[in-house]
Amino acid sequence: MKPLFIDGLQYSLWNRQRFLEMQAGGLSAVHVTISYWEDTVETLQNIGRWNNLFLENDDLIMRVHTADDIHAAHAANKVGIIFGFQNCSPLEGDYTLVEVFYQLGVRFMQLTYNNQTLCASGCYEAVDSGITRFGKVVIGEMNRVGMIIDMSHSGDRSTLEAIEHSTRPITISHANPRFFEPALRNKSDDVLKALGESGGMLGFSLYPLHLKDGSNCQLDDFCEMVARSADILSPDQIGIGTDLCVGQPNSILHWMRNGRWSRATDYGEGSSAAPTWPAQPDWFRDARAFPALAQSLRDYGFSAEDVDKIMGLNWLNFLEQSFT
Amino acid sequence: MKPLFIDGLQYSLWNRQRFLEMQAGGLSAVHVTISYWEDTVETLQNIGRWNNLFLENDDLIMRVHTADDIHAAHAANKVGIIFGFQNCSPLEGDYTLVEVFYQLGVRFMQLTYNNQTLCASGCYEAVDSGITRFGKVVIGEMNRVGMIIDMSHSGDRSTLEAIEHSTRPITISHANPRFFEPALRNKSDDVLKALGESGGMLGFSLYPLHLKDGSNCQLDDFCEMVARSADILSPDQIGIGTDLCVGQPNSILHWMRNGRWSRATDYGEGSSAAPTWPAQPDWFRDARAFPALAQSLRDYGFSAEDVDKIMGLNWLNFLEQSFT
Repeated sequence: MKPLFIDGLQYSLWNRQRFLEMQAGGLSAVHVTISYWEDTVETLQNIGRWNNLFLENDDLIMRVHTADDIHAAHAANKVGIIFGFQNCSPLEGDYTLVEVFYQLGVRFMQLTYNNQTLCASGCYEAVDSGITRFGKVVIGEMNRVGMIIDMSHSGDRSTLEAIEHSTRPITISHANPRFFEPALRNKSDDVLKALGESGGMLGFSLYPLHLKDGSNCQLDDFCEMVARSADILSPDQIGIGTDLCVGQPNSILHWMRNGRWSRATDYGEGSSAAPTWPAQPDWFRDARAFPALAQSLRDYGFSAEDVDKIMGLNWLNFLEQSFT
Repeated sequence: MKPLFIDGLQYSLWNRQRFLEMQAGGLSAVHVTISYWEDTVETLQNIGRWNNLFLENDDLIMRVHTADDIHAAHAANKVGIIFGFQNCSPLEGDYTLVEVFYQLGVRFMQLTYNNQTLCASGCYEAVDSGITRFGKVVIGEMNRVGMIIDMSHSGDRSTLEAIEHSTRPITISHANPRFFEPALRNKSDDVLKALGESGGMLGFSLYPLHLKDGSNCQLDDFCEMVARSADILSPDQIGIGTDLCVGQPNSILHWMRNGRWSRATDYGEGSSAAPTWPAQPDWFRDARAFPALAQSLRDYGFSAEDVDKIMGLNWLNFLEQSFT
C-alpha cells in the first residue's frame, strides 16, 4: 500500500501536467485555491473552469467533498481536489453564501487575505482589530456546515479570536513558525500554542519567502523546524501545505498581491528589488518532491509512523473531523 | 429670491409624492442614498431605477453633478438630486470603481455602514482599527476625482484617521453631537473638533434615535444643540442632514440594519422592544418642514444670515469646494 500524502494548499497553474506531477508525487488530496480577490460571480466562473478540468482529466483527478473521497482517490491512485478560498470576497457580505459555496464543494475559507476584510484583519494591516460582527456570523455558519476556517494570512489577534470563537478546530494551512523565519506571514509561538491546544492543524509552507534563507533554505533546517513545531503543537497536528505556485506567470503574483485594491504596486512579501516569483529550493521544486521529503524526515530522525502522519495522515484525520 | 435649502442626506421611498414634498419644502438639493449593502451590479441597477425617476419626474427633479447644477435647480424651482453611497460595498474591493461611479454621478461615499468594511471600522464594531490599507487607496482616489468622504456611520478612530489621511475636508452628513444624545451613531467632541479644524461639514440629523428624547424631542432643545455645535465647529460648517426615511416600510429598516450579514436580527439603534420605524418629531415629519425649521432657528436667536448658511449655503459652499 502506497503512503497517503496530502498537500494542505497549492495555487499552481492547473493543467494536465500539474496533475501528472501530483500523481507522481503520490498526492491523494490537495487543497486548491479557487479565489483570492474574486467576487461571487467570478468565483462561480472559476468553479466552472474546474468542472471542465474534472471532465478532461478524470483519469487523474477527482472531487473531494468528504474524507471518504480521499480514501477513494488514494485507492484509485488519483489526486483528490479540495476547493478553498483564500479570502471571504466571494461572500460579498452575504452569510448565506457560506452554505451555497459549501454545496459547490468549497471546504476551506480564509477569513482574510493579507488585508482587512469584512470578517477579520490581515497580517499586513498596521492594526489587527480581531473578528468583526460579520466575521462572528460567518464563523458560526462555517462551523454549522463544516467549512474549515483557515487563518494563514491573518493577523495574530484575529487568528487567536477565530480559535476562540470557533466551536471547531481551525487551521493555518500554509505558513511556518516565526521562529524559523520572521516573516509577517509566519506565526508567533502564541498563535501556534493556541492552535495546538484547540486541536487545530498547521501546514508547513515550502514557499521560499516563508523559509529560513529563502530559496537557499537547507533541508536539514526545514526538518529541524518541523521537529521544534511538533514540540509546540504535537506530532499529530502538523502537516504539509506547500503553497506551491508551479507554472504561474508573474502577472498572477501581481494579482495575488494587488488584486484590484491598490493603485501603487504592493510587493507583499517581496520587494521592488525582487518583484518576481522566488525560486523554489532545489529539494522541493514541485509536487514530485513529496516522497523525497518523507525520506528526509525519516533520515532526520522522525519515526516512520510520525512521517506518515506529517505527510498526510494528520491532514486526513483533521479533514475527517472537519467534514462531519 | 427664495432661500436655498439643501438636505445632506435622505433615504426616503422615492416617488413623485416625495419629490413634491421636497419641492414644497424649498429644497434645491438633496443627497440621496443609492446603496447600503448593495454590490456593484445591484448598485448599477439602482442607478437604472433613478434614471427612470428622472425621466418620469423631470418637471420636479434634476441630476446634480456640479455646484452649478444646484444653482440651476434653485433657479428652476426643482430639486437637485446628488447620489451617494452609505457603504463601500459597491466597490467590491476595486479602487478603480471610485472613478467609474463618479462618472455615473456618485458624489458621496461612506467608508463604512455600522460594521467593519474593507476601508474602515463602523460605529458598532467592538474595536475600531482605523483606516485600512485599501481604505487609504480609496481615500486617495476619492480625493483625486472629487468624491466626498462621509464618515456618518464610522467609529471615532476611523473618522479621525479619515480626516488625517484625506487631503480634502470630509463630512459627517447626518449625525448629531454625542453631548445631545449618547448614541453610538452620534459624534464625540473630539471628532467634531477635528472635523471643524479640518474644514469639514456636519449635517444635523432629524432621525429620532439621534435626538434627545427621541420622537418627543423638543424643537428648542434641537436649536440649542445647533448653537452649541456652532461653537465647537463654526457657524460656517454646520447644516442639515435629515436622515429622513419617509414612506419606507419596516422591511427596509430590516435591510438597513441587517443587509445580508446577520443570521439573527440585529436591531441597530433600535431594540427588540421597538423594532419598527420610530415616529418623527411632530415639528419635522418630512421635507415640507424645512421653512418652519429655518424660522425656528431665527426665533431661537440665530441671525438671518446664519440661518441661511445652516439651511443650505454652508452645504453649497462645501459642495462647491468638494466638486472641483
